Order: sequence, then C-alpha cells, then structure tokens
Amino acid sequence: MIYLDNNATTRPAPEVIDAMAACLARDWGNPSSSHAVGQDAKRVLGEARSAVAALLGAHPVEVVFTSGATEANQWVLEGASAALDGKPPLLLLSAIEHSAQLKAARRLAQNGRARLELMPVDRDGRVDLAAAARLIAPGVRLVSLMAANNETGVVQPVAEVAALAKAAGALFHIDATQAIGKLPFDFAHCGADLVSLSAHKVHGPKGIGALLVRKGLVWPALLSGSQERARRGGTENLPGIAGFGAAARLAAARLRADGEHLSLLRGRLEQGLQARLPVRVFGAGAARLPNTLSLRIGTLDADLVLARMEQAGFIAASGSACSAGGNEPSHVLTAMGIPPEEARGAIRLSLSRDNTIAEIDALLERLPGLLAAPLAEAA
Amino acid sequence: MIYLDNNATTRPAPEVIDAMAACLARDWGNPSSSHAVGQDAKRVLGEARSAVAALLGAHPVEVVFTSGATEANQWVLEGASAALDGKPPLLLLSAIEHSAQLKAARRLAQNGRARLELMPVDRDGRVDLAAAARLIAPGVRLVSLMAANNETGVVQPVAEVAALAKAAGALFHIDATQAIGKLPFDFAHCGADLVSLSAHKVHGPKGIGALLVRKGLVWPALLSGSQERARRGGTENLPGIAGFGAAARLAAARLRADGEHLSLLRGRLEQGLQARLPVRVFGAGAARLPNTLSLRIGTLDADLVLARMEQAGFIAASGSACSAGGNEPSHVLTAMGIPPEEARGAIRLSLSRDNTIAEIDALLERLPGLLAAPLAEAA
Repeated sequence: MIYLDNNATTRPAPEVIDAMAACLARDWGNPSSSHAVGQDAKRVLGEARSAVAALLGAHPVEVVFTSGATEANQWVLEGASAALDGKPPLLLLSAIEHSAQLKAARRLAQNGRARLELMPVDRDGRVDLAAAARLIAPGVRLVSLMAANNETGVVQPVAEVAALAKAAGALFHIDATQAIGKLPFDFAHCGADLVSLSAHKVHGPKGIGALLVRKGLVWPALLSGSQERARRGGTENLPGIAGFGAAARLAAARLRADGEHLSLLRGRLEQGLQARLPVRVFGAGAARLPNTLSLRIGTLDADLVLARMEQAGFIAASGSACSAGGNEPSHVLTAMGIPPEEARGAIRLSLSRDNTIAEIDALLERLPGLLAAPLAEAA
Repeated sequence: MIYLDNNATTRPAPEVIDAMAACLARDWGNPSSSHAVGQDAKRVLGEARSAVAALLGAHPVEVVFTSGATEANQWVLEGASAALDGKPPLLLLSAIEHSAQLKAARRLAQNGRARLELMPVDRDGRVDLAAAARLIAPGVRLVSLMAANNETGVVQPVAEVAALAKAAGALFHIDATQAIGKLPFDFAHCGADLVSLSAHKVHGPKGIGALLVRKGLVWPALLSGSQERARRGGTENLPGIAGFGAAARLAAARLRADGEHLSLLRGRLEQGLQARLPVRVFGAGAARLPNTLSLRIGTLDADLVLARMEQAGFIAASGSACSAGGNEPSHVLTAMGIPPEEARGAIRLSLSRDNTIAEIDALLERLPGLLAAPLAEAA
C-alpha cells in the first residue's frame, strides 16, 4: 500500500509513538496536581510546549494546547465575535478556508453574533490582494487566512495580508495547519496575532493542536477552567501533547531535509504525470507546498481514478477528508473559477517524508495503464 | 510511591496503552477518508463507540466523543444558552458542580447569554431536594447535576432531580465524570437528556471524553464540522478514542469486582483512620462513591498533612487538582456549611482498582507517627 493522502493525516512517527507510550506508562499524572506525580506530568507538558514553540519561532507562553486545529480555528472566531460595543463584529475570511471554519463563521453570522465577508482568490487559488486591500478596512475585527491551502497546496500571501490587517487595526489569524513542517514558519515575524496548528498533519497524533496567542493579547477562553493559564480549561491531553512535542522536535530537525525531499518527489510526480497523461494541475501558476499536487486527468471523474488507484495499492483522495463522501464540488476549486464539473475530477496527491522515489516511480509506471481504458472511452 | 489521588487522574491500564499503541502504529488513518486506510480507522472508531455505549447503557449513536468532560460540560451550557426567544435562558446548576463548570456558567450569565441559579446542598453535600423542587419550575431551560461529587464522593439524587426537571419541562444534564466505573450507570433509564464523562478518571487516557446526547435531541454543535454526525467537528482523537474504548471494556467487565474492592479498601481506610486519629469525615452521612474519602485530621492544615504524607511516599490531594495551588477553601465544602478554616484542612484520599489492602495498611501504620508531633503541637 502506497499512501499519498498525507494532507488528510500522516502516519505517526516512531518517536511520537514512543513519547506517547512513555507518557502513558510513566508520566501519567495530572499536571495540575501539586504532588510529585503531577509535577512529573507538568515537566512533560513544559518540554512539549518548548518543542512546539521552538518549531514555530514562538515563546512557550504563547502556545496554548487545544484538541486540534478545528478547536483552535473556531476559538479564534468565537473570541473575535465577543462583541465589544454590542454591534456584531466584521470577520473577513478567505473563500478557501477549511469548510468547517467557513461553516462556523456562517453560523456566527446567522446567529447575529458576527458579520462575515469573504476574500476572493485568483485563478491559481491565491488570495486576490487587490480585493483584499479593498475589503480590509477600518472596522474589520478579524482577518483570517490559511498559510497554505489543504487541497491545492497553494501558499497564501500572508505577509502582505498581515500588513493590510495591521494598517486597518484588525486582528490577523493564520491557519498554519498544512504549512507546518513543510515550510519554515516564524511566529515572531509572521505578523499574525493568532496561529492555529495541528499535530496529526506532521506525523504527530490526532486529537491535539495548538493556538499560538501573541504575548500580551488577552484572548477569552473558549473552554473555561484553570489550565493553560486559564486560557483553555480541561485536564491536558498529556499523551497527545507529548506526541506533539516529539513530532515538533522531529519536524524542526528535519525541516530542510524534508522540504528538499518533498520538492524532489513532487516535482518528479508532477512532471512524470504530465509526460504520461492529459493532466491539468490546479494552482500550477502559484507557489505551492512542496508535498501537494492537485490535478485532473482528462475528463475522468475523481471516484473512478481513485478506485482504480486503490485497487492497485495507491491511496489518494479527491480533496479534504472532511468533505469525503459528499458530492459537492470543492469550494476551493470553484472559488478559483473552475467549473463544478471540472472540480469533480480533482485528485489530490499529498506526500510526506515517509514517501520514496520508488513509490513515485511505481505510480508513474502503473497509472497510465490503469487509466488507459477509461481515457479511451472518454475520448 | 502509593498513589491515593485517583479522582485527579488514574493510571492508564495496560490494555489501554496497548490499544493506543496499536491505533498509532496500525490504524492511524483519518476516519473521514473514503479509502481503505480511512476505513480501518473508522472501524476502530466504531468499536470504541460501541464499548463506551455498552458501559453506559447508551446506544452508540448517542455517544459523541469530545476532548474531555470539560468540553462536554461546557458544550451543554453553550447549547442550553442558544436563545430560543431572545430572552437569556435560565440555567440551574448545583452549587457543588466542578469549578470550571461554575466558571463557564457565570461567564454566560455575565455576558447576558443566560441566567444562572444554584441549587444548594445539605450539610452532607447532597443536593437539597426541597430547595431543588422550589427552584425547578417551568421556565428553567437546563438543570445540571453531578452524579457524584469529585471532592467528597457524595452521590447525588439524580433520579429525583430528573423527575423534577421532567415535570418542569427542563432539560436535565448529568456530569457523570467521577461516577463512571465506580457505580453502575444506565443512560437509558437515568432520566437525563445529556451526560458528560471522561476517560482518564477510569484508567483511560487524558484528552478524551464524551457527551451522551439522547436520541432525537438535536443539540447544536460547539465545534462545527462534519465529524460525529456534524455534532462535533475536528478530526477524531483516534488514539484517545481507542484508549477510551479499551478503558470502557475493562470498566464494564470489572464494574462489580472494582466496586467491591473499592468499598472494602475505603471502609478499611476510613475505619482505620477514625480509630487512630482525630478525624472528621466530610459527607459521612451520605451515600458516597466507594473510592473517595474526604476528611480533616484534627485542626491540621492540609498542606502540612500532604507534605508529611508525600515525604513518606503517600500521594494525596487537598481537593480538585484543577484548584490545586490556589488558596481558596473548597467551594464544595463551604456549600456544605463547613467554615472556610475547616475546609482548608480537607484531605482527599481517592482510590482505584490499582490500590491494595497492603497499601491501605501501610498508610494506617505510618500516618499516626507522621502526624504525632504536629497534632501534639496543635493541641
């Protein structure tokens, strides 16, 4: 089985599994307990926090652990919707944010707790900076943008949008979930007040993530309680946090090597497919994450391509796992102006450090044969 | 080291660690993915859901996994505060709910999103049913009560309160966090619409819990997304859920044996301490969890007693770990009418299936000597 769906989730690294097993077997105390068992757990918590902070160029006190990027993202929306003057605040999201984030923002708008506007993207899936400059005006409470899109891998102009948000006096939030471990990230200099991330996209465990909260910014808790300096209540997910810490240490140590490896593999895959099949790459004109390739093969339906691939042992996806099973065309691709019938053909191939050149070559060798009959039929 | 702080957290069972390790190494897919890797993960999710449902007498579809009891509890408050008619709904909590829950409810009240009233408890720490009957009137949106208190172990009259809530047309929520695995629990017949629980109090991992939502009750999501039938967004904490499932299977298989073991140990501990030391037991007149003993020794300060105990290898706590480090007397004990200076002497000894008679006897043998000098000094 060759796994090419790493933007959905990655395989936990052996070091991550070891760190979690050690935490479960040895440092299983409650970090809030004053006694020695609690203090051992507190030390694990602190070490993991430092590792995550180091990966991201943040201060440890800026790291608040959450149950994942979804909680972190929606916490940002909730916090920004806490009315200051009784008037629902204006939230500005890109049109290609994660579907759960758009759903949460629309719900706040429906409930009268916020107003929502979307920043459009260009045909390559990059936020349209001219449109963003018009929209990001005084009165906007929050601007929220992904560092890189989960479906296309297209890297977003976060520095430019950060400058616009700052000039307008708006808070700026980056959803860095897909970028972490694939691109360098420096919280200290990224211009964002808040950054969301998730462990399981970078060979850590599912169920743990973080929100980086800029030092000095008082952000109202989503879950009340005493933990995380009263910013996130609930006994900490210590095994998950230990795993996240291990994943962060690995990612930091391997960031350059992983980036080069992924670029090499993705380039080989993209060029190889283009040489062998009638491929249209989505976001081809933009800078993209080194691991992500979104494309359509001829006029073939994604389900057909994915089924043939899986029968031959290649695992990929049509887009976000969170939307899998649905029949709607991707909101990301339609926002790029791609017609729904074309968007329904989209295949996402997403790599990780676990993938090898041999795996890429195996796919390049097999795929034309697997698709020859349907392509001939469609022609 | 003899660990007597199991109401703060329990040691994960070996079966739990094994289930999590297997999930991390083998079934690490995203349960939302349509492909085989995702479907293997989805099977793990379903098996764990069935195990948790079976422990609690619930239907699997009624189990919604959360990041823990804190999220589940506060989700209930948020859901109940979704205004139906523009008027802030009335929430009725017992005065001895977890401090994070009271904090969350007070914040909703401060923000004008709810009104809050508290049900008092009697001197043994049981909800005062006469007062509850007066308070639970038509117009109350939600009644929320612990199955058993985390500090005193006092079992609450949930059946009686459920009947009152039903008669008044109010929703009824039980925080069953401390009761699970220690007392039988039957969601089908408990009279509650919503029940919160946590894995780490029953030898499962931290960072995972559940809200039971009565079939047919549409409960608005706290976190938007497609997972858990759109009731709780975010990629599932699959290793945590696998561990929770294993913990639930163990708890169900051992419920009777564990209950008898805990009762035996707690009885021996309580009687032994009363025979040897000037002990006042809190909640002594009420039915209590079989594992919990809350008491004061003479007029000694809790910190002194706990420090002497820990030097001798016995780990206990003054109350909730979430309040550890604070200097406030327990809100649970003060709600029982215990003066603050007495409440500051409270020691909580909480047992688990891992404790042995030999451990109890060791404490009974050592403690009088450890406290002889301070007791003489205080006299």
